Amino acid sequence: MTLDENWFTEVCEECGTAFSLRSRRKLHEEQTPFQKIEIHDTEAFGNLMVIDGFVMLSARDNFLYHEMMAHPALYTHRAPRRVVIIGGGDCGTLQEVLRHPEVEHCLQVEIDERVTRLAEEYFPELCTANNDPRAEFLFGDGIRWMKEAEPGSVDVIIVDSTDPIGPARGLFTEAFYRDCHRAVGEGGIVVQQSESPLVHLEILLPMHRAMRAAGFETTHTLQFPQPVYPTGWWSATMARKGGSLLEFREMEAAARPFETRYYNAEIHRGALAVPEFFRRELERL
Amino acid sequence: MTLDENWFTEVCEECGTAFSLRSRRKLHEEQTPFQKIEIHDTEAFGNLMVIDGFVMLSARDNFLYHEMMAHPALYTHRAPRRVVIIGGGDCGTLQEVLRHPEVEHCLQVEIDERVTRLAEEYFPELCTANNDPRAEFLFGDGIRWMKEAEPGSVDVIIVDSTDPIGPARGLFTEAFYRDCHRAVGEGGIVVQQSESPLVHLEILLPMHRAMRAAGFETTHTLQFPQPVYPTGWWSATMARKGGSLLEFREMEAAARPFETRYYNAEIHRGALAVPEFFRRELERL
Repeated sequence: MTLDENWFTEVCEECGTAFSLRSRRKLHEEQTPFQKIEIHDTEAFGNLMVIDGFVMLSARDNFLYHEMMAHPALYTHRAPRRVVIIGGGDCGTLQEVLRHPEVEHCLQVEIDERVTRLAEEYFPELCTANNDPRAEFLFGDGIRWMKEAEPGSVDVIIVDSTDPIGPARGLFTEAFYRDCHRAVGEGGIVVQQSESPLVHLEILLPMHRAMRAAGFETTHTLQFPQPVYPTGWWSATMARKGGSLLEFREMEAAARPFETRYYNAEIHRGALAVPEFFRRELERL
Repeated sequence: MTLDENWFTEVCEECGTAFSLRSRRKLHEEQTPFQKIEIHDTEAFGNLMVIDGFVMLSARDNFLYHEMMAHPALYTHRAPRRVVIIGGGDCGTLQEVLRHPEVEHCLQVEIDERVTRLAEEYFPELCTANNDPRAEFLFGDGIRWMKEAEPGSVDVIIVDSTDPIGPARGLFTEAFYRDCHRAVGEGGIVVQQSESPLVHLEILLPMHRAMRAAGFETTHTLQFPQPVYPTGWWSATMARKGGSLLEFREMEAAARPFETRYYNAEIHRGALAVPEFFRRELERL
């Protein structure tokens, strides 16, 4: 069958697939200096943000991504006090980070202020922590910020970016990871969204290689569902400057002082499991 | 954008979504006494089987589903010697079952012989165990078979069916589960595909209720990725006649005498993790 004009469709060229959401209407569209942003009112997934034709998030299922970008890394670090988010303009990751009472400061470095302003308007439920005194917003280039960061000044870096095309390309390089490695203290962690385990091994495997080449002793990929992204199966890859990525503050995660919708200690442990085909690929690195 | 006629598209009405695969050509189409079966040659997912407009499997990603339908249940049972598959006409689950050397007999009860014949033609890689002397094929009604099964004659029942519409509807009922409960011995296990945790709670929760009402002491849902199914996030629900579903032969799973592409002991443990929102729903059952 053919879909009529009441659908928003994203084609994933490298997957040979397309994903569509029935849209009641387009609520907003603008071209910023960096990209084209659209907001749709979808029938079953609530509001949808699209950047340059790629789905960024829906109201219905973003909790999966945002929880898994924040909590595993934060519960792996011994005492995450200083967090930096690169990208993350929709503020969903920031909100999850600030649920951790031990976090003293979270800086969000987003290149496009319009993403954040539109999130405040169309995804207010993700922006509830924006006025938290621990939150700081910087609208600018995350790559440059990392280059100039004070050595050892950060505990956890969360790279919550678009795909490695356009302005985000430089976030998937050894040079950027070297700057991250310098910016974090001993035991510091970087976590970065790393695409689909099924169709994006050519992004995932070089990411592991580049993180290790940049000086990180250990790297590990987490898997989780994300229905609005290609294949519905997504990942985040962590790198650590000394210390394990398989151990985490499991008791504290189980007794966490906030509600989640997906994350819990068993989900964290489970997300660390490595599918056989991916394990075999990593062994060859 | 609108997709042209070179795409196969499945609309998921209850999800408000559609999933499309670029198709090089339709290799086959037929109306059987039970359903319409199509085979497409897709650009990136290999051969694709579609029944009544719903994607059943693709060559590229069926390993996820078939491994997760077979191995967790078989490694949970202490000594799975007698296995029955209800449905499963593509033979992918049968193949995974027969990788277990302790299995002495696996009966597959598929209502539509054409599914199996087309699998042999278009998915020969799933049919490598069809000539195994332990495999027995019965083309008929699985619901009736279960009603007439010898009490205590089965160790593991795998319900590998289509969605609960059409001929598969009766497989999602308390009456069927009562028959399963009688058919399995002490410690016996039923595992059934149970749709998407994100969008099909109205199938998943009644399934737990019905399995327990039918006499099973414990039920537990496994989660795993399945990109060609709606949301890309799928589940299988297990029910057991006495004994735990959280414990399994973990050392044997880790030292299994066959290759897998997704399953391993950590993946098994991880798939048992219950997302917070689903845990809360189950508590209310």
